[in-house]
Amino acid sequence: MIVAMSISPGVADETGSVSEAVAAAVRVVKESGLPYELNSMFTNIEGEWDEVMAVVKQAVDVVTAVSPRVGLVLKADIRPGYDGQMTAKVERVERLLGD
Amino acid sequence: MIVAMSISPGVADETGSVSEAVAAAVRVVKESGLPYELNSMFTNIEGEWDEVMAVVKQAVDVVTAVSPRVGLVLKADIRPGYDGQMTAKVERVERLLGD
Amino acid sequence: MIVAMSISPGVADETGSVSEAVAAAVRVVKESGLPYELNSMFTNIEGEWDEVMAVVKQAVDVVTAVSPRVGLVLKADIRPGYDGQMTAKVERVERLLGD
Amino acid sequence: MIVAMSISPGVADETGSVSEAVAAAVRVVKESGLPYELNSMFTNIEGEWDEVMAVVKQAVDVVTAVSPRVGLVLKADIRPGYDGQMTAKVERVERLLGD
Repeated sequence: MIVAMSISPGVADETGSVSEAVAAAVRVVKESGLPYELNSMFTNIEGEWDEVMAVVKQAVDVVTAVSPRVGLVLKADIRPGYDGQMTAKVERVERLLGD
Repeated sequence: MIVAMSISPGVADETGSVSEAVAAAVRVVKESGLPYELNSMFTNIEGEWDEVMAVVKQAVDVVTAVSPRVGLVLKADIRPGYDGQMTAKVERVERLLGD
Repeated sequence: MIVAMSISPGVADETGSVSEAVAAAVRVVKESGLPYELNSMFTNIEGEWDEVMAVVKQAVDVVTAVSPRVGLVLKADIRPGYDGQMTAKVERVERLLGD
Repeated sequence: MIVAMSISPGVADETGSVSEAVAAAVRVVKESGLPYELNSMFTNIEGEWDEVMAVVKQAVDVVTAVSPRVGLVLKADIRPGYDGQMTAKVERVERLLGD
């Protein structure tokens, strides 16, 4: 499955920036070794439920450690028997668009 | 924490209805014994990460069993040291609204 | 269509509470006259696209007025030709559950 | 603001694929001229509320035209006075990660 994950600390720093908390969470994803892609709104991770969710939990934990309240938004596309979809899904759409 | 969960089968029945798949998922939540509330868009569940996520996984599994592709949307409000927030959050807002 | 809307100010008050900002947003929904339901994670609103989105925009505006950064999460179930679904969807599921 | 948008038809084709409906929606975004990025879970669009929401509505409309029921998930990061954030947000995080 592919999971799009967004973790936001309840409290931004005084400039309204949440980059440091987000970077800490993305570092967890990166070190997990699972395929991932970072974009301006979500971090997408591909893998089996248990391995992806273990990473999400650990990413939430590093943000909870520095913020009293954490918001998590997660969207998953679960399609047993398919992998390599993080790239394949975009390619299918781009092919249809003639890109 | 409180999790709002929405599980949708990739394929609706011929009338466009997804009620049966949703009911199967909600039954899993109900039988878990965790506090929950069902509304027209999400099922909200309150508990600790591991217990809530075990229920979410099981709910996804019953829908995956009848649909080749499943979409999951999850939003969590994680606030260590707080419980009973499923009721308390709504009460705080209603008090401010004078309801 | 039904829209589940969650608006969060980028900055909570010193106790981590966001109730006041949320109440201001819900007040906008309430005064719109559209059918709505408030739960611990989202405010659900039913109506046509233009009328619902005008309310969402106004609700975002009242929070933007007090917070330099605002997060919005929105999930919509769009089903032309159907109304009264905010109640009907829950009833269909509860009937299947034998509640 | 930046909006992450995901539109899914209620009914996939017989292979479970939703690529054609998604491509039709992304074509609308592309032709709008607004900055956007396509990834495996969401299409991110940057612009002012009215221009972005007009594109989202039009993208929903092309999918509603071929599917009796449409699901929309939208996450927005609203930060008045900032633009060019679709690239800048990722760069801030990557710099903190040492990438």
